[in-house]
Amino acid sequence: MSEEEKVYISYNHVHQLIQESTPRLKKFNPDLILSVAGGGLIPARQVRTFLKEPGSPNVRVMAVVLSLYEDLGSSSTDAEKIGKQVVRTQWLDYQNTDFTLLGKNILIVDEVDDTRTTLNYAVNELKKDVEEQAKAKGISVEEANTNFGIFVLHNKLKPKKADLPAEVYNETNYIAAREIEDVWIAYPWESNDIVTHTRKAIEQGNDVFLP
Amino acid sequence: MSEEEKVYISYNHVHQLIQESTPRLKKFNPDLILSVAGGGLIPARQVRTFLKEPGSPNVRVMAVVLSLYEDLGSSSTDAEKIGKQVVRTQWLDYQNTDFTLLGKNILIVDEVDDTRTTLNYAVNELKKDVEEQAKAKGISVEEANTNFGIFVLHNKLKPKKADLPAEVYNETNYIAAREIEDVWIAYPWESNDIVTHTRKAIEQGNDVFLP
Repeated sequence: MSEEEKVYISYNHVHQLIQESTPRLKKFNPDLILSVAGGGLIPARQVRTFLKEPGSPNVRVMAVVLSLYEDLGSSSTDAEKIGKQVVRTQWLDYQNTDFTLLGKNILIVDEVDDTRTTLNYAVNELKKDVEEQAKAKGISVEEANTNFGIFVLHNKLKPKKADLPAEVYNETNYIAAREIEDVWIAYPWESNDIVTHTRKAIEQGNDVFLP
Repeated sequence: MSEEEKVYISYNHVHQLIQESTPRLKKFNPDLILSVAGGGLIPARQVRTFLKEPGSPNVRVMAVVLSLYEDLGSSSTDAEKIGKQVVRTQWLDYQNTDFTLLGKNILIVDEVDDTRTTLNYAVNELKKDVEEQAKAKGISVEEANTNFGIFVLHNKLKPKKADLPAEVYNETNYIAAREIEDVWIAYPWESNDIVTHTRKAIEQGNDVFLP
């Protein structure tokens, strides 16, 4: 892919993509913003700002750290492959606090839905945690009433390597600020030269106009 | 404090504050970037970019979530007050992984060093974890050779409510991109109108010039 095919995204554009998505985010009504690090760290903080209601506390942000490794081409099943590709570096801390997933609307935030592998992994692992927590409390998963939603800045229109369950992949729960072709998206936090990066974003229309 | 006394900081300025700090960050040479959420989420991701060496993997980012509550004016000792003011919402996940603090250079990242209460809390709690992990391994804390560093965008020049230990508060380990008077700093991720915010940052000289 040539340099010209990169899509440059400025910080202010990211901020405004989230602002634009606020009505949909408020409709899902998260009790918890779950940032998938590294890519979700920055959008998650911005989502918190736009969900803030005067007089109410901030919606809590937590983070899990997942790394995606390339498929090594083994002959394992698809489910095994997906499991192997994602490495869990940090997960939620259920030990030190009285924190529970039960009864919450949990918004998983990442920067991009590319192959969907990471999001698939995150949702499946969280659903397992809900099952365990519900069992420990002696209630069913339905009674637990935990809902998962997803927010990404960009959903790439390409064949996905993994699916999301129907209760997540629907108009209310799955929120992508933009659908985009399968191009190389250059996010600002990856840049070593933010001035050039922002100039390119402005040229490409991926920034608000500034004097 | 009047609106005029706010110091507006743009996203690109934050990015460049971190770029400027890269030599000092590389000198501390972190094995782990520990983001203190919410404020540290965005700078932590940017720090990772500038620490990236070609051919080497990214420095790992993890997050802890701490909330600071106002001192309720109780008659407890200072240490107790500090403990009560900080609420630990998410801590590191030592259960699910083979992750350890031992032998690591750990950079704690937050946006601002205001009263120093949160940073004091984070360092003290992490030191306790190091003690436990060293004990479990049958070695001394000295043998564990864990070093803590701090990176903040701004250190406010004001009386602090809590201290940092000497092994952290020194030229190598304590890195503030800017020392600043005790003013109201408006970070971009808190803004509901990023265009106006960035214009004010440009007017105040807290942004790079863009065409």
